[in-house]
Amino acid sequence: MAHKGGVALIIGVGDGLSASLARLLAKEGYTLALASRRVEKLDRLAKETKAKIHRCDASDPAQVAALFKGVGDHEVMIYNPSYRIRGPFIELDPTEVKKSLEITAFGAFLAGQQAARNMLPRGRGTIMFTGASAGVKGYAQSAPFAMGKFALRGLAQSMARELHPRGIHVAHIVVDGGIRSSQRPDGGNDNMLNPDSIARSYLHLLHQPRDSWSWEIEVRPWVETF
Amino acid sequence: MAHKGGVALIIGVGDGLSASLARLLAKEGYTLALASRRVEKLDRLAKETKAKIHRCDASDPAQVAALFKGVGDHEVMIYNPSYRIRGPFIELDPTEVKKSLEITAFGAFLAGQQAARNMLPRGRGTIMFTGASAGVKGYAQSAPFAMGKFALRGLAQSMARELHPRGIHVAHIVVDGGIRSSQRPDGGNDNMLNPDSIARSYLHLLHQPRDSWSWEIEVRPWVETF
Amino acid sequence: MAHKGGVALIIGVGDGLSASLARLLAKEGYTLALASRRVEKLDRLAKETKAKIHRCDASDPAQVAALFKGVGDHEVMIYNPSYRIRGPFIELDPTEVKKSLEITAFGAFLAGQQAARNMLPRGRGTIMFTGASAGVKGYAQSAPFAMGKFALRGLAQSMARELHPRGIHVAHIVVDGGIRSSQRPDGGNDNMLNPDSIARSYLHLLHQPRDSWSWEIEVRPWVETF
Amino acid sequence: MAHKGGVALIIGVGDGLSASLARLLAKEGYTLALASRRVEKLDRLAKETKAKIHRCDASDPAQVAALFKGVGDHEVMIYNPSYRIRGPFIELDPTEVKKSLEITAFGAFLAGQQAARNMLPRGRGTIMFTGASAGVKGYAQSAPFAMGKFALRGLAQSMARELHPRGIHVAHIVVDGGIRSSQRPDGGNDNMLNPDSIARSYLHLLHQPRDSWSWEIEVRPWVETF
Repeated sequence: MAHKGGVALIIGVGDGLSASLARLLAKEGYTLALASRRVEKLDRLAKETKAKIHRCDASDPAQVAALFKGVGDHEVMIYNPSYRIRGPFIELDPTEVKKSLEITAFGAFLAGQQAARNMLPRGRGTIMFTGASAGVKGYAQSAPFAMGKFALRGLAQSMARELHPRGIHVAHIVVDGGIRSSQRPDGGNDNMLNPDSIARSYLHLLHQPRDSWSWEIEVRPWVETF
Repeated sequence: MAHKGGVALIIGVGDGLSASLARLLAKEGYTLALASRRVEKLDRLAKETKAKIHRCDASDPAQVAALFKGVGDHEVMIYNPSYRIRGPFIELDPTEVKKSLEITAFGAFLAGQQAARNMLPRGRGTIMFTGASAGVKGYAQSAPFAMGKFALRGLAQSMARELHPRGIHVAHIVVDGGIRSSQRPDGGNDNMLNPDSIARSYLHLLHQPRDSWSWEIEVRPWVETF
Repeated sequence: MAHKGGVALIIGVGDGLSASLARLLAKEGYTLALASRRVEKLDRLAKETKAKIHRCDASDPAQVAALFKGVGDHEVMIYNPSYRIRGPFIELDPTEVKKSLEITAFGAFLAGQQAARNMLPRGRGTIMFTGASAGVKGYAQSAPFAMGKFALRGLAQSMARELHPRGIHVAHIVVDGGIRSSQRPDGGNDNMLNPDSIARSYLHLLHQPRDSWSWEIEVRPWVETF
Repeated sequence: MAHKGGVALIIGVGDGLSASLARLLAKEGYTLALASRRVEKLDRLAKETKAKIHRCDASDPAQVAALFKGVGDHEVMIYNPSYRIRGPFIELDPTEVKKSLEITAFGAFLAGQQAARNMLPRGRGTIMFTGASAGVKGYAQSAPFAMGKFALRGLAQSMARELHPRGIHVAHIVVDGGIRSSQRPDGGNDNMLNPDSIARSYLHLLHQPRDSWSWEIEVRPWVETF
């Protein structure tokens, strides 16, 4: 269980889920730090959540190290970035596939390691990784995303096994379905995932005391087949 | 998401997790109905939670039908009972193995079906099944419990696939570890699962809006290997 | 690895997969024992495979005990029976659901236990259970089959964990798809599972030396989505 | 099912499993092509299996493309390479973690894509990936290997879903345990995986007709806990 009032660092922030997470954690009393490759778009959210903004390419070791140095002690770290390409398997561009692995999985390692280094001396903290259906099921025409999200899940599980007994809560959230976008106002349509609702499951994990931790939870809209 | 203030029926109530669930749901404003094979021990809990008590053998179709008739409309149904025998595989008593399947899995079907019949016309409600590590991993010297809890998980998953699109939330909670007992006061030891903490994960699932439902969550203490 | 030339007992024999298994094992030199609730239909297969036929209701403890007494020492035991009912969850007949659990899972326990008792003193033997997609995925409108086949998988996994280190190979075969029927001659159509091909995977498991055992394998036709 | 007599390309060849695979496939009539980063050590095996040797860094797109150009049409492609580092999570070297992903998973993508391009026009062929326990379970102190092998499994599953219906068999073999080494003659000790036995499971998959394909199989020694 993270200590409220501490810093929550969210990496990979745009609109959608990451914005919902920022708003909910701000409301719960956390001090927000938001990191993104493109920070220009974050002004409004930063103002709304009183967040500090950091520019960072999450797949670059030096930039990630600098980010965490800039953020300092934190109670929560959430890693969102992914890079998804689709298409017939034989037509995939290897450069893009490599990039998919680096952003979706290698960057998660970099951030997870920095967060663990910061949290271990205090023996507490919560690290959460945003997964996808693709992390538990490899779909056709989507090998790169499957590779990245499977690797992310392996990372999260390995970290959980190692860090739980040392007081750090590591969790993997399987977002199984399309997320409703603020760009598409749809009059109360709840057939797609609501980012505000997903964020509440992150918050639940964050507030679990260590005598009852989940390492994984999946969320999907009621109409979704799985 | 269940409507607060409605009836929450908990089947298989003793102390431990079921008592924590009763207390938490009462505090959240639900009207409690508690069912158990042995109701004598429930006086104190019933008083504390203003619950109505029902005697019921959960593996008996007629008794389960009578129970639901007596309870009437309800927003929440939680099924806890299980029957566990252990021992060298070749020495297991077939009668006991059958009983394990009937209490752990067949009774869950009976209760799940009655709950679904009651909830479907209103198009809402939450059905939760208490699972165990044994439902995802078959341990040596524990075949009957594995059979029962695997079957329970298959039931829950099948029900979720069928009933989610009709507005009924079905969830399976994997309790992965030993639960701390009120009989063993242990001075703040958090190395075992705390039933009050587990109950909060049930409550989280119960309050998930249908635009972001989980069908499964596992909980374990921080020190537990998995 | 079973000793060739020994007895192979197949429980739940009709046409389809069980007949293919009988033919292949006979060809490989095993002495066949075939058990079924209805033995009338087995004359031709018994003649072809030089098998001894046993009448047995696989979910009845006394009949199963008598069957194994009649068969005596054996190297291989394969359990096929299942009982499948489908339909809207709220309309399922509890009596049928119980029967589904008893034939699909409880009978497998009975047979597995008898086989283990026979094999353990020699420290060798192979026990195989015929599973289904329904054992790893709970489909809508199919809760009873999911319960039975999930339970079967839990049984097989628990037995494998306990009996592998004692020299008994326990395996679970996930038959994921419809099996081509000899009743429907279809001119070389290989879009459905071929029972002769599935039987070869059973044989592969049977011939694995104990320094490289599989506890599970799934088979499906090339066109099947999974 | 691959056509016997065709070319079988094995990438990542040393001693152990890859050598057993080479010997078995040669004996079965395949024409062997062996690729390795260090080809010096392969002289004896190449002679024994009448194999053609190719030098190739499996994580380099240009070298992999050149390798497949050199090999030409082939019926079988097996990808073995992995790079494993272990240690406390916070001490892992990011450069090594990246290398682990590139050799274990990205190289598998490169080889898988080249193989698929070659096989698709003929509508047949078999692609096999050597996985590990780490691909289904993320162990403590082993995040990089978990990331690589999980990613490999996601790749294999995605490829299977896409390529099975086009006639290409894609399979993932979970090698769950330590492999006995020829360097350590141990007088018939069968407590560790025997590479010759594992190779027989690869051969079984290779010979499965497309009316009964497995996409995954795991193998472990009888005494191994799982």
